[in-house]
Amino acid sequence: MKEKERKEVFQKVNQFKIERDTNIVDLVNNLKGTGFNAKRLALACEIYYKMIEDKDCVKFFGLAGAMVPVGMQQIIHDFIEEGFIDVLVTTGANLTHDIAETLGYHHLQGEVHIERLDDVKLYEREMNRIYDVFLPNKVYEGIENFVSKLKIPDNNMSVSEFLKFLGENIPNNPKSILRICAEKNIPIYCPAFTDSGLALQLGFHHQKLNLNHFKDMLEMVNLAWDAKKAGICIVGGGVPKNFIFQSMQFCPNSADYAIQITMDRPEPGGLSGATLNEAMSWGKINKHAKHSTIISDATIALPILFWYLKESRVGS
Amino acid sequence: MKEKERKEVFQKVNQFKIERDTNIVDLVNNLKGTGFNAKRLALACEIYYKMIEDKDCVKFFGLAGAMVPVGMQQIIHDFIEEGFIDVLVTTGANLTHDIAETLGYHHLQGEVHIERLDDVKLYEREMNRIYDVFLPNKVYEGIENFVSKLKIPDNNMSVSEFLKFLGENIPNNPKSILRICAEKNIPIYCPAFTDSGLALQLGFHHQKLNLNHFKDMLEMVNLAWDAKKAGICIVGGGVPKNFIFQSMQFCPNSADYAIQITMDRPEPGGLSGATLNEAMSWGKINKHAKHSTIISDATIALPILFWYLKESRVGS
Amino acid sequence: MKEKERKEVFQKVNQFKIERDTNIVDLVNNLKGTGFNAKRLALACEIYYKMIEDKDCVKFFGLAGAMVPVGMQQIIHDFIEEGFIDVLVTTGANLTHDIAETLGYHHLQGEVHIERLDDVKLYEREMNRIYDVFLPNKVYEGIENFVSKLKIPDNNMSVSEFLKFLGENIPNNPKSILRICAEKNIPIYCPAFTDSGLALQLGFHHQKLNLNHFKDMLEMVNLAWDAKKAGICIVGGGVPKNFIFQSMQFCPNSADYAIQITMDRPEPGGLSGATLNEAMSWGKINKHAKHSTIISDATIALPILFWYLKESRVGS
Amino acid sequence: MKEKERKEVFQKVNQFKIERDTNIVDLVNNLKGTGFNAKRLALACEIYYKMIEDKDCVKFFGLAGAMVPVGMQQIIHDFIEEGFIDVLVTTGANLTHDIAETLGYHHLQGEVHIERLDDVKLYEREMNRIYDVFLPNKVYEGIENFVSKLKIPDNNMSVSEFLKFLGENIPNNPKSILRICAEKNIPIYCPAFTDSGLALQLGFHHQKLNLNHFKDMLEMVNLAWDAKKAGICIVGGGVPKNFIFQSMQFCPNSADYAIQITMDRPEPGGLSGATLNEAMSWGKINKHAKHSTIISDATIALPILFWYLKESRVGS
Repeated sequence: MKEKERKEVFQKVNQFKIERDTNIVDLVNNLKGTGFNAKRLALACEIYYKMIEDKDCVKFFGLAGAMVPVGMQQIIHDFIEEGFIDVLVTTGANLTHDIAETLGYHHLQGEVHIERLDDVKLYEREMNRIYDVFLPNKVYEGIENFVSKLKIPDNNMSVSEFLKFLGENIPNNPKSILRICAEKNIPIYCPAFTDSGLALQLGFHHQKLNLNHFKDMLEMVNLAWDAKKAGICIVGGGVPKNFIFQSMQFCPNSADYAIQITMDRPEPGGLSGATLNEAMSWGKINKHAKHSTIISDATIALPILFWYLKESRVGS
Repeated sequence: MKEKERKEVFQKVNQFKIERDTNIVDLVNNLKGTGFNAKRLALACEIYYKMIEDKDCVKFFGLAGAMVPVGMQQIIHDFIEEGFIDVLVTTGANLTHDIAETLGYHHLQGEVHIERLDDVKLYEREMNRIYDVFLPNKVYEGIENFVSKLKIPDNNMSVSEFLKFLGENIPNNPKSILRICAEKNIPIYCPAFTDSGLALQLGFHHQKLNLNHFKDMLEMVNLAWDAKKAGICIVGGGVPKNFIFQSMQFCPNSADYAIQITMDRPEPGGLSGATLNEAMSWGKINKHAKHSTIISDATIALPILFWYLKESRVGS
Repeated sequence: MKEKERKEVFQKVNQFKIERDTNIVDLVNNLKGTGFNAKRLALACEIYYKMIEDKDCVKFFGLAGAMVPVGMQQIIHDFIEEGFIDVLVTTGANLTHDIAETLGYHHLQGEVHIERLDDVKLYEREMNRIYDVFLPNKVYEGIENFVSKLKIPDNNMSVSEFLKFLGENIPNNPKSILRICAEKNIPIYCPAFTDSGLALQLGFHHQKLNLNHFKDMLEMVNLAWDAKKAGICIVGGGVPKNFIFQSMQFCPNSADYAIQITMDRPEPGGLSGATLNEAMSWGKINKHAKHSTIISDATIALPILFWYLKESRVGS
Repeated sequence: MKEKERKEVFQKVNQFKIERDTNIVDLVNNLKGTGFNAKRLALACEIYYKMIEDKDCVKFFGLAGAMVPVGMQQIIHDFIEEGFIDVLVTTGANLTHDIAETLGYHHLQGEVHIERLDDVKLYEREMNRIYDVFLPNKVYEGIENFVSKLKIPDNNMSVSEFLKFLGENIPNNPKSILRICAEKNIPIYCPAFTDSGLALQLGFHHQKLNLNHFKDMLEMVNLAWDAKKAGICIVGGGVPKNFIFQSMQFCPNSADYAIQITMDRPEPGGLSGATLNEAMSWGKINKHAKHSTIISDATIALPILFWYLKESRVGS
């Protein structure tokens, strides 16, 4: 390799210093010159910023994992409020938990040592555990009460139409994801909706409900098809990841931007841990796409990403 | 702690020897006296065996991950044929790939070094990659051809009714999961069915299809409710894991046996990696349940589990 | 559980908002009220801060992983300069790479897609790869030149004495870990020193060198024994983790504070992934110790930890 | 891509059946036609078999992780007895635990649920925990008694010379790794020897001991240099992995065969999780090398590997 070529490809690793007046944009810019997941996080910040700046880009956001229970509800709400998300695909669980918090209930945490918890005692206390976060059973009673009183206008709505109806009929709460999506007309897709506590209670109380899942699927394909450009942010993987990607697969323009935050890895062959390069073989993202995968707990990476985007947008 | 007590709890680690005439049952029995994931695999084998022997036990099997593409189709088929599964919950992807193989198409593999693959070139060759396994685009054309010709008797069937219809109308193939489930009347639930290539093609060709997902959800709750005893085997986690567990949550008898094979871990709080102890806090498995989680690629642990069960059953 | 008791243990999860004027201390304080690894990171920040404030606490820092190549050299240097480390235990690799940067050579990075790298071509270009960071062979020549000219005063020094000698004889460079440790009289222990490129070149050029590893081991035990209180920060695990912990095991006062940043997990039984609770069974940390494990790439967590500590210390 | 070319590269995935008369060689041969870690395990079995059959190949074996405590002592002993290892590189911990078992003490396990263990109580019971395996403190007293009585002939031996002396002076025990290595003249290298309970007790009782670690390092380089061909098996990574690889780096013939069994992954940049491809960029394994990495708990993969090798060798 010629010396000239090498200079074009490789630069010095940035042995950066954190100063007193460092801010999040400085930090991310510094991390961009390092390696491993710090660099990938910096690249993801930069790519998401470009997605926002690119007026032609439709921004798809796939959200899996217990992000609402763990305290990321306001952050996700603010992603939507700031205009960083155009289409949300998520799990029934996150919606169930969003309703809980929106109705005024709370997930709990505390000074617990995970190694010493006794799940049998938690069961007796009616405290459902999600790693080190807890949801008392009585919250489900509150959700059930809300769900049982719903006047559902059409039993054959699509899931996304139903979720918009829910967002319009839930109390106003400045952190509610369902509410802000309804207000801003951001569609929420939830392909595995019946795999949730919310759907169970709907099913128990509204026996004729038959939400049209195929309508959602076809709408989603149309959204992907119609996008001049597409950008994707995946948190955690799972069904939301696959649902966004399968919609891209048959489009004339597959995704131009893609980032994912996950703890899963490629070697066992599951989709959640699959690289974004692999998605190129399927035509889900295109060969010129800017992309970055961060191996990180989303509870760490997502706030940093949002903080960077908010701070970067100040001057724009 | 008194010496007497200690003896009751702790035994010597088994520094076992593999002899010429070792068989899989010997090996697993030896591993039971070790630790880490070897011991957990041995416990899982033992627990699944008890599930089979227990005539009151309904055996729920949750299957996520690209298990059919990677070569586990026959093993899963044989789990069903041998009577080791009473209710199957899986992903749309595994069903799509099952149809591909059942129609006579094949997933491909080869002497490839994953680090040197060029996904852009694979895209040009129309070869879709799943880690180190490949599916040519033309297979999707074959599935599309099959799907487009289906005479669907009722657009409002539940997903499981539709999957039974599919299994009855697919060519007879001694490794087909859909076929053996239809023949043996084993229900297949697929809560995220529209998150699959199969559903996309159904949607494109059968525009009025509106499978009733809520019907599946309620049926599944009834199956769990009616089971005298329940046993659960989870491969990979994901929606199948949650769907089985949410059905158990409100039952008078939560699960008595539970095993899971996964590469996910509890610390990032996702359900796939959650411990089976955590499920006790929710009342999804009961406090007396025998359970074991194996951190292993399922392509290694699942064949060993099946081999052990088949060999153990010889004399019974 | 009585309602009163529950309130004492559990609090509401903090659905926090990132505002325009958020700083790193605010963010960490907010994360403390969440869960999963975000909370653990916040707890680790708080614990390290307490270690610094506690004048009786000797702060042991175990550093494994390719932290210098990836761009964390200045951060680690600044941990030492700020007085956040009293005893450093690290790998020969980090020292080798510290010398490279200190001598004016550089690790390289660039706009590379890890999936498309050809390691055979890199070998031909004499570019050694560490994931997505690179070290040209010629850097080793520079290190060799430096090493060959060393006038080693005593072939039977301990490794830490030798490393102090190195730090005193290396060019002054404001990011050098060896240099700042020598200047501030912070001992560096490196139990697996001969497992490094630096040691290989020393061995080739100074055939009589026989550094006394046992002297280091016994000194380290004395340091642990003499500490009124001990605090431990582990980055990555490995030999540095075990070496610090084995020194604590027989002390009258085992560690009072402990944090670790790692991607390893407990289930396969290795020490790097072992929980800090497990260390209590050995008497390596005491039963009242404040401790936190963060499952995170250190390239993300370490800068955040340092930033928090630096910012928190402004007013103190 | 032309149809002809495709056939040369890709074959059908093997949807294999486990029959009543399946043996381990059949199973591994079947797994070779699958993907993910099952295929990698099969390739590793095949590669190790070739290493054994290749009379020019020197077989280096790197052993990290708590393999002796967990019950793999006999398997490792038998690898050596069968002639499958020419040079062993391991951790001080495995040697400490080998001595414990060799002296007639035992590691313990039992019907424990890891989630309910109380490490503070274990400490009070003097039971040291290694995930779900336990070592009573009194075992260390037994080791200390043995160590204190040793008549060490030369305080400046290399570590490997000392370990041979130990193997010759330890009671005869048919599962002892130290003993079989001494008997068969298989050198044991242990670069981080002072990072172990064994070394601590040696240091306390033999204050003049100063084992020459540099001598081991240079010997190891010579062994690598002199090998016509080299084959490497890495269990777990850590210092043993790096020590073997650094010895290969400057050889005229870098390794021709390499396999590794690990739960670590490449993304955080640590050596334990680094791919074997990465090792090619350094010239540690050559570009024609046959290699395979298995992401698996070694307690599962190592017995399968040994079983396959033993069974395959029957007819040879």
